[in-house]
Amino acid sequence: MATPIQPTIPPNDYQLAGAGGEFLSELRGQFGESPLLRMFDDAAIEILADYMQVYRVPAGKTLLREGEKSDFALLILSGAVNVMKSHADGGQHQIATVLPGRLIGEMSLIDGEPRFASCVAATNALVAVLARRSVLALLDEHPKLGSLLLMRLTALVSNRLRQTSAKLVDLMASAQADKAAAH
Amino acid sequence: MATPIQPTIPPNDYQLAGAGGEFLSELRGQFGESPLLRMFDDAAIEILADYMQVYRVPAGKTLLREGEKSDFALLILSGAVNVMKSHADGGQHQIATVLPGRLIGEMSLIDGEPRFASCVAATNALVAVLARRSVLALLDEHPKLGSLLLMRLTALVSNRLRQTSAKLVDLMASAQADKAAAH
Repeated sequence: MATPIQPTIPPNDYQLAGAGGEFLSELRGQFGESPLLRMFDDAAIEILADYMQVYRVPAGKTLLREGEKSDFALLILSGAVNVMKSHADGGQHQIATVLPGRLIGEMSLIDGEPRFASCVAATNALVAVLARRSVLALLDEHPKLGSLLLMRLTALVSNRLRQTSAKLVDLMASAQADKAAAH
Repeated sequence: MATPIQPTIPPNDYQLAGAGGEFLSELRGQFGESPLLRMFDDAAIEILADYMQVYRVPAGKTLLREGEKSDFALLILSGAVNVMKSHADGGQHQIATVLPGRLIGEMSLIDGEPRFASCVAATNALVAVLARRSVLALLDEHPKLGSLLLMRLTALVSNRLRQTSAKLVDLMASAQADKAAAH
């Protein structure tokens, strides 16, 4: 049995709904929806649930704030979340809306760097928190399962890097073509 | 002692130079240069070396081919490597030149997907191969060290995703601003 680990999260916008173990059916459901987590069986999910806590976040509240130092990821169990990024022009732009089954905030979990973007609850949301400390504890207490989770987290980030790099290369190529056409 | 694991690599362009353990000083030197690997001490590097092989690749030869299925990463020990990506216009464009201390090919190691870009030796190069199977064997035989390596690989990919995403968001914002100015 794992020692319960409370992640450090901004207290105002999160309402503790319970330990992961109290939300096993929601976790099972969303693990099934997530390309990241689909591979875990019920026994693995029960162990992982011991390393997660579940929170409610009311619509309009901020789940993650760009630039903030915090190192947990969130698995969205219900609701919708807008991802917002500030630009050099000073404005905030919505770059995505994400739905249940999606993991957010995993980059800071992994590298401990400040949040890349803000995430705001578009509706009332239910989220499971996975803190960096919990991943380290899992690696220590269940090395095989911990490594498997880490492999999946890494594959997820790698997949996002491929998609983002492909978009960037295309955009740079078309910007070059536009410039060439203008001359 | 680890079972030596031979990665599946294209035989023509690679010349086996020896087991990782025969290149300890080169590995130590480049681990020190790499933000990914700097944290490993000599004892850890000696273990890691047992899971790597070292190859020579002559100038002009291809180390990794875009679209190819292979699942090893390469740590550049000496030489320079050009990273090339094909565009929708059919051409190949150089997107980076990378130097000793840099790890390449880690996305396919992690997610098993085809190579995102090609890597061509710009000079004669010496590279250490880290295969997916070796990482799995390391996780099995040295769980602590394996998890640490996996955490560092993940942090590296996460760091690249931050940089690439930031570039993409900036480029999209300036493309939007250009369009707005044109109207």
